[in-house]
Amino acid sequence: MLHYTRESLDTMDRITRLNLVNCLSGYKSVNLIGTLSPKGITNLAVFNSVIHLGSDPPLLGFILRPTTVPRHTYENIKARSLFTVNHVNLELLKRAHQTSASYSREESEFELTEIEPLFKDGFDCPYVAESPIQLGCQYVNEYYIKENDTRLIVGEIKHIYLPEEALWKDGWLQLDQCNVLASNGLDGYAAVQLLERLSYARPVLAPKRLTKEDMS
Amino acid sequence: MLHYTRESLDTMDRITRLNLVNCLSGYKSVNLIGTLSPKGITNLAVFNSVIHLGSDPPLLGFILRPTTVPRHTYENIKARSLFTVNHVNLELLKRAHQTSASYSREESEFELTEIEPLFKDGFDCPYVAESPIQLGCQYVNEYYIKENDTRLIVGEIKHIYLPEEALWKDGWLQLDQCNVLASNGLDGYAAVQLLERLSYARPVLAPKRLTKEDMS
Repeated sequence: MLHYTRESLDTMDRITRLNLVNCLSGYKSVNLIGTLSPKGITNLAVFNSVIHLGSDPPLLGFILRPTTVPRHTYENIKARSLFTVNHVNLELLKRAHQTSASYSREESEFELTEIEPLFKDGFDCPYVAESPIQLGCQYVNEYYIKENDTRLIVGEIKHIYLPEEALWKDGWLQLDQCNVLASNGLDGYAAVQLLERLSYARPVLAPKRLTKEDMS
Repeated sequence: MLHYTRESLDTMDRITRLNLVNCLSGYKSVNLIGTLSPKGITNLAVFNSVIHLGSDPPLLGFILRPTTVPRHTYENIKARSLFTVNHVNLELLKRAHQTSASYSREESEFELTEIEPLFKDGFDCPYVAESPIQLGCQYVNEYYIKENDTRLIVGEIKHIYLPEEALWKDGWLQLDQCNVLASNGLDGYAAVQLLERLSYARPVLAPKRLTKEDMS
């Protein structure tokens, strides 16, 4: 095995360190976050930092880079308190990645990357029409992480749209049936296939495989 | 598409809501966090909330559930300031899942689940010997998330161990060559295969595929 220390990381060039450290936590989610500007311009940006925070209340979070560069997503969320989280599948991948280019505040990534926006059920924020899983979220709070000038944005899930066939009877959603991707580091994207669900672990029993039929 | 609202989530039974909402953020990492108790008992627990926070300084985080139930990992980190993050592959999966059973404070999950601990390079905290990617981390800070009584624990990466053959010249680590898994919700585990890396997005260029040969 190769061994790096904190000191050897410090002597790496910036891009190498960026590539490496971004991979170290393991696989990440891939989502498009949709917002609406104060002027009504739709905005879309790809994120690989959307995380689960809790189910009751239903909360998710994502990490925002330092705000020293323009962060349209953040400005829009602060102005309007709403955002959508839209999962990325293979068909959306290249266009989703392209939303990370530096477009101006007056341009919509939806138009520029040819991703169709969708407004529905009175929620005043654009979803990605093609996305297999779509969440409408309300901004709740943010935590400033002083160690590296980032922010954990916390949102409450208000609307959930998902394909019925991927849902198990006990509420569990089989993501590979939605064809959503995972990310590997800054710029790698991966296909995922379910191996198994394991039963709740108890001290004296080995975990057993759960099947969709168990839930019927 | 099925549509759930915040109100329909509130009327679901607790387990169904737990299963569903845990899946909504997308794929997650699967890691074993190793710690050492004040008495010197090794501790190991599976987490699917380890996230990348930044590369300079090299920081990662993970979410801890409410501390109203015993949290040995948290107590040990508070007492000794060190923890290890160890990626889970298929060989480790069932034993890793089993670490989530309620064992007592005096028992070591390493012994009970037959996972071999490893101490090395003067770092006073146990790694998982079999794990393909091992990180030695120092506790830096924590952020209490008041909306649901959880904590974001922030750690700095001090040691990195990884298989050289999975590393690209530009520092990017190909996780599928390490055979590490992703998680789907609370109890689902998935195999992952790289599709492609995409070049840095610029407004007027379509993203192109990066190859390992480009990096040579």
